Amino acid sequence: MFRPQIKVIDCTIRDGGLMNKSNFSFDTVKNVYKASCAAGIDIVEIGYRNSKKMFSVDEYGPWRFCDEENLMRIVDGNKSETTKIAIMQDAHKAIAEDILPKEKSVVDVIRVATYVKDVDKAIRLANNATDKGYEATINIMSISVALERELDEALQQIEEETKISACYVVDSFGALYSEDIDFYIDKYKKYLKSKEVGIHCHNHQQLGFANTIAGIIRGANYLDGTLYGLGRAAGNCPLELLISFLKNPKFDIRPLLDVISKDIMPLTREIYWGYSIPYMITGILNRHPDVAIKLAESKNEKEKLAFLKFYEGLTEVEVED
Amino acid sequence: MFRPQIKVIDCTIRDGGLMNKSNFSFDTVKNVYKASCAAGIDIVEIGYRNSKKMFSVDEYGPWRFCDEENLMRIVDGNKSETTKIAIMQDAHKAIAEDILPKEKSVVDVIRVATYVKDVDKAIRLANNATDKGYEATINIMSISVALERELDEALQQIEEETKISACYVVDSFGALYSEDIDFYIDKYKKYLKSKEVGIHCHNHQQLGFANTIAGIIRGANYLDGTLYGLGRAAGNCPLELLISFLKNPKFDIRPLLDVISKDIMPLTREIYWGYSIPYMITGILNRHPDVAIKLAESKNEKEKLAFLKFYEGLTEVEVED
Repeated sequence: MFRPQIKVIDCTIRDGGLMNKSNFSFDTVKNVYKASCAAGIDIVEIGYRNSKKMFSVDEYGPWRFCDEENLMRIVDGNKSETTKIAIMQDAHKAIAEDILPKEKSVVDVIRVATYVKDVDKAIRLANNATDKGYEATINIMSISVALERELDEALQQIEEETKISACYVVDSFGALYSEDIDFYIDKYKKYLKSKEVGIHCHNHQQLGFANTIAGIIRGANYLDGTLYGLGRAAGNCPLELLISFLKNPKFDIRPLLDVISKDIMPLTREIYWGYSIPYMITGILNRHPDVAIKLAESKNEKEKLAFLKFYEGLTEVEVED
Repeated sequence: MFRPQIKVIDCTIRDGGLMNKSNFSFDTVKNVYKASCAAGIDIVEIGYRNSKKMFSVDEYGPWRFCDEENLMRIVDGNKSETTKIAIMQDAHKAIAEDILPKEKSVVDVIRVATYVKDVDKAIRLANNATDKGYEATINIMSISVALERELDEALQQIEEETKISACYVVDSFGALYSEDIDFYIDKYKKYLKSKEVGIHCHNHQQLGFANTIAGIIRGANYLDGTLYGLGRAAGNCPLELLISFLKNPKFDIRPLLDVISKDIMPLTREIYWGYSIPYMITGILNRHPDVAIKLAESKNEKEKLAFLKFYEGLTEVEVED
């Protein structure tokens, strides 16, 4: 038995782009889009539409900006009728004017990522999107460090001031346990009477998939995943696991297995995502993984493996060395 | 707040030994034992005591047999007063006579692994152990393919005919979801009024840790984990995650981080455990991972990456190639 309201979103290129400055080849992006369409995924998020005033086009690849002509090259005249295209705008790094009227764009859904403190910016961008004819969502990042009073107020505002379809619990630090997921989904549902609740998990404690299931059980209907978990730091809920768990017969795992073979596995040689002890440490300490990403990029092999020192550095225990 | 009845078992060397024929160096085993003691782990399972008539001593390393003199070398005159030592006997591959009277052994706990069909053999070995003065457990493997009528009867027998301390749900195929864990734990508790329930999870669907948490919530008090998840195929519930989740202040994660750095990470160059698409496929199909292990050991790099072909082969869909 399945819940027809459930929507699955493939964020491979968007979240994975945080690990390679959104520098995927056109072929990779095209193959991921085609595979997601063939697999029956509801929405494919191809990248960010962030401001070129804030990100250098020399430093960042095309999927940090998702210019319409680049998206057109991905769709290649064969836009799926059932799989929507999404792009993300960061509330504090994007501008409303970069969004065309819907009829001039290949995009269907604008997802606005925000910290709780930036919720007013997020609401402005979300309203810009819905006013221009798009579906929109608001994705509240780093939820595990949000102050509860501010979160409550933000959710109330989102309910009253927007026409978004869904608002997300985003566990950026991979710090939440299933009981926390229950807590946040319940809170969202209490405030967001007219919206769906979404869930976007990271895998620092190997709970990305499990917490997504916990979210489903608690009532989340917008579910994010990425191919082979490709995403920031320890990565995300693996899309292939999510699809095999869901019972809706419209989903077909085979195109996902195929694109993982051909397009994602080669990336494992140049992008290092997935569970590791430093990522796990930032997860259990409820911290941003940036310090662990920096360690992973270090050329000092001995330092990279000094897990206890890394842990003690973050917990400020005196280290004897 | 913590549940004092919870016991944590480190199975690194025992379950990891399924990936290298139990060929760990004495130093590695000694360091794992010492780290587990320092971390406050309740029981360390050092290996199997299986029959030398069924396993060749030329082919398998010392931890497939755990001769007393080898265990003494690990303990090295410093046996922990709080961390017990366990060994495992396979119901169909071990003999009762290989177990000495308790007072002549450094071992505290005999864990008997069995399939449901071999439960009478397991009961005989478990009773042999408790009669000789040991604590014993029975670990029912491959639970996800056990026939329910046979499982019910086995649990009834175990309750009535043994003096074991705990009986385990063992998800050998990594096939269970949290709702399945709930189902099995409830069933075990219904039959096993005088025993504790244990849980031993595999990570084929990245649910090893999450399902262990699900087990805890449902009442399991014997919890298995391994360092960095080292174990058969996709591996196990990572011990470092489990310890960081549990609230009992007696646990200290730091010795575990240190031994992972120094002794487990070097093993990643020669033993290939952890999440992969072939292991995930056997997990979602509720199959033994042997076919995926065989694929992982193949020297044909192209074949190893042909995930769709592997999936279709197992699901008997006609493959055009």
